[in-house]
Amino acid sequence: MDYPFLRACRRKETDYTPVWIMRQAGRYLEEYREVQKKADFMTVCKTPDLTVEVTLQPIRILGVDAAILFSDILTPVETMGLKLQFIKGKGPVLEPPVKSMQAVDRLGIPDPEDDLGFVLESIRILRKELEGKVPLIGFCGAPFTLACYMIEGETSKDYSGAKRLMFQAPHIFSALMEKITETVSIYADAQIKAGAQAIQFFDTWAGLLSRADYRKYALPYIKKAISYVKKQNKGVPVIYYVNGSSTILDLVKSAGSSVIGLDWRHDLDTAWEALGHNVAVQGNLDPCTLFLPQDQLKKRVKDILKRAGGRPGHIFNLGHGILPPTPRENAIALVEMVHQLSRKK
Amino acid sequence: MDYPFLRACRRKETDYTPVWIMRQAGRYLEEYREVQKKADFMTVCKTPDLTVEVTLQPIRILGVDAAILFSDILTPVETMGLKLQFIKGKGPVLEPPVKSMQAVDRLGIPDPEDDLGFVLESIRILRKELEGKVPLIGFCGAPFTLACYMIEGETSKDYSGAKRLMFQAPHIFSALMEKITETVSIYADAQIKAGAQAIQFFDTWAGLLSRADYRKYALPYIKKAISYVKKQNKGVPVIYYVNGSSTILDLVKSAGSSVIGLDWRHDLDTAWEALGHNVAVQGNLDPCTLFLPQDQLKKRVKDILKRAGGRPGHIFNLGHGILPPTPRENAIALVEMVHQLSRKK
Repeated sequence: MDYPFLRACRRKETDYTPVWIMRQAGRYLEEYREVQKKADFMTVCKTPDLTVEVTLQPIRILGVDAAILFSDILTPVETMGLKLQFIKGKGPVLEPPVKSMQAVDRLGIPDPEDDLGFVLESIRILRKELEGKVPLIGFCGAPFTLACYMIEGETSKDYSGAKRLMFQAPHIFSALMEKITETVSIYADAQIKAGAQAIQFFDTWAGLLSRADYRKYALPYIKKAISYVKKQNKGVPVIYYVNGSSTILDLVKSAGSSVIGLDWRHDLDTAWEALGHNVAVQGNLDPCTLFLPQDQLKKRVKDILKRAGGRPGHIFNLGHGILPPTPRENAIALVEMVHQLSRKK
Repeated sequence: MDYPFLRACRRKETDYTPVWIMRQAGRYLEEYREVQKKADFMTVCKTPDLTVEVTLQPIRILGVDAAILFSDILTPVETMGLKLQFIKGKGPVLEPPVKSMQAVDRLGIPDPEDDLGFVLESIRILRKELEGKVPLIGFCGAPFTLACYMIEGETSKDYSGAKRLMFQAPHIFSALMEKITETVSIYADAQIKAGAQAIQFFDTWAGLLSRADYRKYALPYIKKAISYVKKQNKGVPVIYYVNGSSTILDLVKSAGSSVIGLDWRHDLDTAWEALGHNVAVQGNLDPCTLFLPQDQLKKRVKDILKRAGGRPGHIFNLGHGILPPTPRENAIALVEMVHQLSRKK
């Protein structure tokens, strides 16, 4: 079946611009909050029935053109040997933070089927549930972003602790990055083998690096992971999203993904021009604009579609994850607007 | 007296590249930590003797080419009528957060001499102390960044609460921005009248805006403030620093400052080229690179100087504030390196 989302990933013509929303299964949906009353975040991630339920919610409620596996980028990290907790008001906490070569040596490489079987099981169920509706995107953190969390042990404004280790102990940093790269490579591959029809790598913090440092400390690893996934799964689209990528667009492209996720600070036309039109792009509405009245939101949607210029290879999305206080009706309206405004006569 | 820093602000030739460090008076200096044992942060900001002491420390210890008034961007905000506290592990907290037109109406416009006399007094003392050594830079938050803090009431990862108000209640947002703009305009002017020989506007969060939103919600206000300051003080350099400005460089330039502060994600040569060489630039070493061994730090310094190309109008600085755990000896070495490597035969 030739879904618009997958066609757009391959830069083929579609009848309308496909759209999905980063974090489309989330707290802005009352149906999601209902599930969260029964089980905490990690339990939802680890219980296939619940994972499937929340993954399907935005398909039913919003009518988006792709489902994305409900998960957390830190899910595989836990199986490498760190304790993961979500603490209210603080976010994820990983213990112990990785600060030494001994700590890196202690990390294992998970076996996806044994250690992350719940993810693969969810994917298998989801494929059955979604058949004929929309394709399923797999979900994976990029090595640099995962290293940031693993070294800091928690979220940070600037990840200066992680960058400090990177600069002061590059051998520890690279050993850690190698292990993460192997983990995400086989994890992403396993998701595709289980049924994911595309995979997105999230590199939320790589935009904190200068060009020289991105080139040296982040790019080789994500490139290796993408290359592995592509080699093992010919033709399956890989999406690479970096938040704050405006100074490193050319390097981001050289990582080799089929689709590049753009944050909202780019003008989409300029960014696509800079990247070259031989790669698909995904984005890039500011998540905060979903607070606008719908007539103004519509102008923003129109503007992005105009900048994409009807060129094959644009997947509409936000430039970052949807925010928990977003009005549900505006998320629904967004999907309708994209479909309606982009539909070819 | 024709100081290298002021000459560089005016794009005149200098014998070497002048250098100062954002947050150069700070916790990375044991001398600063000694002062903080006697008095908390706000007390240091409000007590001229202590302000003067910590402002002078980096001149003596590092040999930087400019002093910058030790202060906080929220100092004038407190005098507008919000309660400001610094809470350990959380940062600044402003109460009550500004969320309604009533809250905006309650805000006052401070009289710098009456309400911020301690700042002006510090500047007058500093000018005497610094005479013949280095010039003094005044210190001011830019309107958008101050609005972010005033609406959120505390630091935030993405200031989505502030942007939400901006989108949902633009009349409240613009009324707030008008009051902030008036405040910072007369505050910056008063600092110059008291003796500051240049003024820097810090716009830490404007990089969270898309181009369209920066143009609409931030630019007109900072432009107005800069224009006021320039008109009142002919020839006094205005520095405008925006963190994460790569997609809005042309707009940042149109705000009208004499010097543009660049963060570390830009390559300095590309950014200066994009800005045009008819404006001076300040930056842009990644603060985290001060954790590198000195031989590698030196390569980074060389690289930035090379990108500046010996062109008049480059002031060396970090791309963001120096980090508290920075090794003091590396900060000292940085200043020496810049002077030594840039000195003309």
